[in-house]
Amino acid sequence: MERYSKADAWNIIEEGFDPQKNKIAESLFSIGNGRMGQRANFEETYSGETLQGSYVAGIFYPDKTRVGWWKNGYPETFDKVINSINWIGLEIEIDGEVLDLHQCEVLNFNRTLNMQDGYLSRSFEAKLTSGKIVKVNSIRFCSIDQDEIAGLRYQIEAVNFSGKVKIISYLDGDVRNEDSNYETKFWDFVRDHDDQDTIFLQTRTLKTQFDLAIQASNKLFSNNTQLEVAGEVVRKEKFIAKHYELSIKQGEQISLEKIAAVVSSLNYNQEDLYAKSAQILTAATALGFEKLKQNQAEAWTHKWAEGDLIIEGDLLAQQGIRFSIFQLYQTYTGKDARLNIGPKGFTGEKYAGATYWDTEAYCLPFYLATSPVEVSRNLLVYRHNHLQKAIENAQTLGFTNGAALFPMVTMDGTESHNEWEITFEEIHRNGAIAFAIYNYVRYTGDEKYLTEFGLDVLLAIARFWKQRVNWSKDKNKFVMLGVTGPNEYENNVNNNWYTNRIALWCLDYTKKLLESLKVADLSSYEIICSKNSFEETELSDWQNIIDNLYFPEDKSLGIFLQQDGYLDKEDLTVSDLQKSERPINQNWSWDRILRSPFIKQADVLQGLYFFEEDYDQETLQRNYDYYEPKTVHESSLSPCIHSILAAKLKREDKAYEFYLRTARLDLDNYNNDTEDGLHITSMAGSWMSIIEGFAGMRVKNGKLNFTPFLPESWNAFSFKITFRESLLEVRISKNTFRIQNNSAHPLSVVINNHQQIVNGESEINYPLKEMLIKS
Amino acid sequence: MERYSKADAWNIIEEGFDPQKNKIAESLFSIGNGRMGQRANFEETYSGETLQGSYVAGIFYPDKTRVGWWKNGYPETFDKVINSINWIGLEIEIDGEVLDLHQCEVLNFNRTLNMQDGYLSRSFEAKLTSGKIVKVNSIRFCSIDQDEIAGLRYQIEAVNFSGKVKIISYLDGDVRNEDSNYETKFWDFVRDHDDQDTIFLQTRTLKTQFDLAIQASNKLFSNNTQLEVAGEVVRKEKFIAKHYELSIKQGEQISLEKIAAVVSSLNYNQEDLYAKSAQILTAATALGFEKLKQNQAEAWTHKWAEGDLIIEGDLLAQQGIRFSIFQLYQTYTGKDARLNIGPKGFTGEKYAGATYWDTEAYCLPFYLATSPVEVSRNLLVYRHNHLQKAIENAQTLGFTNGAALFPMVTMDGTESHNEWEITFEEIHRNGAIAFAIYNYVRYTGDEKYLTEFGLDVLLAIARFWKQRVNWSKDKNKFVMLGVTGPNEYENNVNNNWYTNRIALWCLDYTKKLLESLKVADLSSYEIICSKNSFEETELSDWQNIIDNLYFPEDKSLGIFLQQDGYLDKEDLTVSDLQKSERPINQNWSWDRILRSPFIKQADVLQGLYFFEEDYDQETLQRNYDYYEPKTVHESSLSPCIHSILAAKLKREDKAYEFYLRTARLDLDNYNNDTEDGLHITSMAGSWMSIIEGFAGMRVKNGKLNFTPFLPESWNAFSFKITFRESLLEVRISKNTFRIQNNSAHPLSVVINNHQQIVNGESEINYPLKEMLIKS
Repeated sequence: MERYSKADAWNIIEEGFDPQKNKIAESLFSIGNGRMGQRANFEETYSGETLQGSYVAGIFYPDKTRVGWWKNGYPETFDKVINSINWIGLEIEIDGEVLDLHQCEVLNFNRTLNMQDGYLSRSFEAKLTSGKIVKVNSIRFCSIDQDEIAGLRYQIEAVNFSGKVKIISYLDGDVRNEDSNYETKFWDFVRDHDDQDTIFLQTRTLKTQFDLAIQASNKLFSNNTQLEVAGEVVRKEKFIAKHYELSIKQGEQISLEKIAAVVSSLNYNQEDLYAKSAQILTAATALGFEKLKQNQAEAWTHKWAEGDLIIEGDLLAQQGIRFSIFQLYQTYTGKDARLNIGPKGFTGEKYAGATYWDTEAYCLPFYLATSPVEVSRNLLVYRHNHLQKAIENAQTLGFTNGAALFPMVTMDGTESHNEWEITFEEIHRNGAIAFAIYNYVRYTGDEKYLTEFGLDVLLAIARFWKQRVNWSKDKNKFVMLGVTGPNEYENNVNNNWYTNRIALWCLDYTKKLLESLKVADLSSYEIICSKNSFEETELSDWQNIIDNLYFPEDKSLGIFLQQDGYLDKEDLTVSDLQKSERPINQNWSWDRILRSPFIKQADVLQGLYFFEEDYDQETLQRNYDYYEPKTVHESSLSPCIHSILAAKLKREDKAYEFYLRTARLDLDNYNNDTEDGLHITSMAGSWMSIIEGFAGMRVKNGKLNFTPFLPESWNAFSFKITFRESLLEVRISKNTFRIQNNSAHPLSVVINNHQQIVNGESEINYPLKEMLIKS
Repeated sequence: MERYSKADAWNIIEEGFDPQKNKIAESLFSIGNGRMGQRANFEETYSGETLQGSYVAGIFYPDKTRVGWWKNGYPETFDKVINSINWIGLEIEIDGEVLDLHQCEVLNFNRTLNMQDGYLSRSFEAKLTSGKIVKVNSIRFCSIDQDEIAGLRYQIEAVNFSGKVKIISYLDGDVRNEDSNYETKFWDFVRDHDDQDTIFLQTRTLKTQFDLAIQASNKLFSNNTQLEVAGEVVRKEKFIAKHYELSIKQGEQISLEKIAAVVSSLNYNQEDLYAKSAQILTAATALGFEKLKQNQAEAWTHKWAEGDLIIEGDLLAQQGIRFSIFQLYQTYTGKDARLNIGPKGFTGEKYAGATYWDTEAYCLPFYLATSPVEVSRNLLVYRHNHLQKAIENAQTLGFTNGAALFPMVTMDGTESHNEWEITFEEIHRNGAIAFAIYNYVRYTGDEKYLTEFGLDVLLAIARFWKQRVNWSKDKNKFVMLGVTGPNEYENNVNNNWYTNRIALWCLDYTKKLLESLKVADLSSYEIICSKNSFEETELSDWQNIIDNLYFPEDKSLGIFLQQDGYLDKEDLTVSDLQKSERPINQNWSWDRILRSPFIKQADVLQGLYFFEEDYDQETLQRNYDYYEPKTVHESSLSPCIHSILAAKLKREDKAYEFYLRTARLDLDNYNNDTEDGLHITSMAGSWMSIIEGFAGMRVKNGKLNFTPFLPESWNAFSFKITFRESLLEVRISKNTFRIQNNSAHPLSVVINNHQQIVNGESEINYPLKEMLIKS
């Protein structure tokens, strides 16, 4: 762990430049707007360690699969969001010397991510080898208001000299990925163009044929007076630049405002990209950099009004949770159902910007509560759009009759992953996708979604589970063989309790929905049956499985067994491990991990989290007490579930302790891997720890429920959520639970099992201590 | 299946040239002498489909591991025997036109592998585009008499013209492997040299620094009269050639005799390779091609006298078994304990020429019976030489106290494989290596081997098993979790019966050996204890495991269970599969294979084969009847074990049917993969089917036992074996079992449970029908 930045409620602040940590900072200070993401690479030349990353969501390249030993059924390619045209690029020359922070003395370096207003700024003084000192201030943002616009302002002041400054502002499409499997190139040149002050570059991905075009305007100023300088155009391969040569006087500040319009064939015809970008850019430059920056701040104000979370009395925690919310909002805005949330968002190459079950299991709750309903709806529609491919995917694995297996890792519905134990066997993802539909409807009440989209997906998933189990003569039950549960430290096990549990739930939920729809809305029912070639006899097959699915358990211990044979393992807990052995995934060979009792992340407990209403506290307690001590939490998605369950068990210290593990995971580079990118999806877990754990928020029977507590070291915490069109603000302090209803209509909420009405435009204050004493 | 060659008792004959099948022929007609192997590539230029292969045993390159997702413990490299200096290379130009069978009309093409005398010959007429016809005869061999020598004679006759012929005889070290993981180069140039008629090239493997040097002499003849032609030397990168320009008259035959001395740093100092090769080559050229060829024939006569197997009345079977024996002898001669037997020998790149458990489980019986005792002894010493690396290998997986895990795939003791379910979990190989020691001692009576080498290995393996099991509180037994058995269509299973069985046997055998050695030879015992830091308390730990190891079984079915939970699978047999689904490894996704009941190769049955004396016929029968119908035999190592067990169960038709599956596996390109190389190790299985199956040969209490039968379609079969220094010839016909003792001393054998004495230099004829009626 290293405390990387200064404590601050609204800003991430780096003071002083440490080249060793530059890649970490490049991740931390990433900016994005759901449509594009940009690592905090320097605008100007940098010859030190860096991971260049300019990503455009939805634009990906199918990199040829690399695998040691091919298994039948593996996908041919791994689809990855790739490093794209670099729009921030500048080269600064002072009297012929290139400004490069790796080659000169750097003074007063400051990098700040302003989360309130949504921009990244940087300032420093560079002492060149010539002894000349320049002072630089830069600011940049990806507009969340207008998501095809990004802008930067770069200011250079001549501190102790007068001379020549050359500013090269470029668009560079000759970029590569560090994780390219075969060092192949991903991009082809399409066209470029230049105009008065603008440059334009269009490139195309090989194979997938996505066109990306960026048009950038350049305006130069001397101490705020615009300069009329004719730039010279220079072209290289997939590269276009304007060269500006200027004189600079001691004390003078030369500024460049570069505004970029970023458009792609996702949204326009390939031939129209020049015209479209010109049109968007013209409008944006008409507004000007300052106005665009203002709009950005306003857009962020609006976001924070929907989703801010205030922690009183703990500045580091405050900074951590704001950073999480900020990055989640930057990663996914829900405007486009073709986009999704990569585990590292668009802040690095790892996990390829692709979609995992993280979205449904961990991220959805955040967007449900903190964004308009369309946002989470689009997360669901994303999977519905992939249904046909999921059916085809299942077919390649031998399934029939419209059974669907959604991919483990995907961009557009095509499976990308190639470890058999994951790709083919970590099938519980299908369950999470189904559960997300339930979760969405539970939270939003949007039942129309089911007939429009949801039931198609549920039905195909139910069909998958139906075929994935088989009858065991030996057990006289249905069994599910050869799966990998959420605990990926077990592979190819039989009867993983969690997978069986969520499979049964899927069958039951889908069956009940279909049965009630038939009664409530026969014509919709008939449409769904017809378009999915659904036969009612399937229901009795499902019921047979529901009635006869095997669940491993141990009656004497009173626990569900993670899988068949789990009790054959050595009976150890994490306290039996030496410090030097941890994390075991870095210190033990894979087979040793597999046969050990150690658990990567919640597995049985993930099931008890999802289906908590089916289990009493004692059952939860026994399973928690059995499994948590065996859990090494080597997934950043593990602590949040344990935090929420610990809170439910009234183990508030434990709940807080688990929350802390991810609260500042990236800010403090806890796992020493922040340089690869940020743990975006586990940020949603931190948020869940607070909302579902500390505040104990649930939706039951269409009502919000809370069973709150306040971590000892905090004075209070409060958060905004939207529930069924009411914008609410909840504040939990030592003695009081306050809920403020900012909508016009009254809302019924349940606090510590006591129903309360909060009238429109009013608040209630509910005494907490009292309730705790009572209960 | 395609019948590739003409039926013939001693030759493999291809008539007519089919470029489509050239790579198959290149494998089939491979020649070798244990020290080197050479695919049947053409000497002259060939621009059609070809897999070039000149391999030198023991010279390998550590190709950087290619893997999709790294698992802790994987080896960094995959060691592979690599394509080396091409010594056969010629280029022939007729009046400026390059002779290339892919570019001209080919008439009367014949390729023959003469197994009796050990050479490959080829003849054809080529009609060039110019209309000129040349007639070519070539012969080549790798000398098994003198294993650093190879030779070829290439004869060109001008059929219908007079003109110029240019012969370029070269050594080409600028070669590559088709299976190179990263297209890296494997070889560096060291030096070259040329002399009167010789060329010399020395290259060095990168990383491993093996030097290989070949010196070749070239003699030219016109109609058997030696020509004095000064060749011109031409060099290219890692390439040296002599160019000879000659006139040829219609009807004249020009011959080139090229003799190559192949030496390496395995046997000499790198600096001495020129001198050594010169010395060897000088001696060889002094003998001349014809004499070398004669010596080769004599050496092969000697081999066949030790190991021939004659099948009367079935020419195809005769050809098949001779081909198997020939290839086994070509692959391994047992002169050098650093060498071993790759599954494809040195006939292709697949399996990298590396050592698998095939050697111990399938090949050892062949060499035990058909070669001097040193040959099998060296197969064992090979593993002893790797003991320290096997201990280190186990250490990287977390084992301690001198426990050894021998690698799954290796050249020099370093693990090469990188599939976790195989590398880390297919640990039964350790058992086969231990069993081979037992098998060797049982056959040869060479108990000294145990104190000298064997016990070190057994002890380290026993220590491995001791640590690999763990106590299951649930079962109140020791269990072995997370293994892959011989049936690789199951991965990461618990309590694989076979693995548990062989582990228990290892512990028991080693313990008993140590206990009896302590009584019989205390000082040897103490030496072994001391050098292995062995504490006697270990024995009681072993005994505890022997007494309490869990074995899955089903009492009602009366069978051992392949692993925990095997009975949860669908109760199907191979007859339930559609023809279009087979082989399932090409038609089903991996997960489907894994959760299916289908078995790749003998697993429980492999244990019943190894430990047959511990199980009665009824037990064998129940298990055979349960498992064989579920076995898809998608390993070429599967049918032989089933053949032997079927013979034991007196199911002679079945035994014969299984034998047939591999009898001509490559000759008839049964699995459509012969182009990759020959199935060398399964050839040993074919031999076993006949010897252990049909002849029912076993060694029990130091005596040979036979329970013979004759396949219906054969008239008789006979074979040579050496047992305890007696060269024996056994012949089984319809009515008579004949055994001829070619040694001086009498031998006691057991035929159908009846003990018989065969006096020295005499034979007995034992009536079979009668015995069968009696029994």
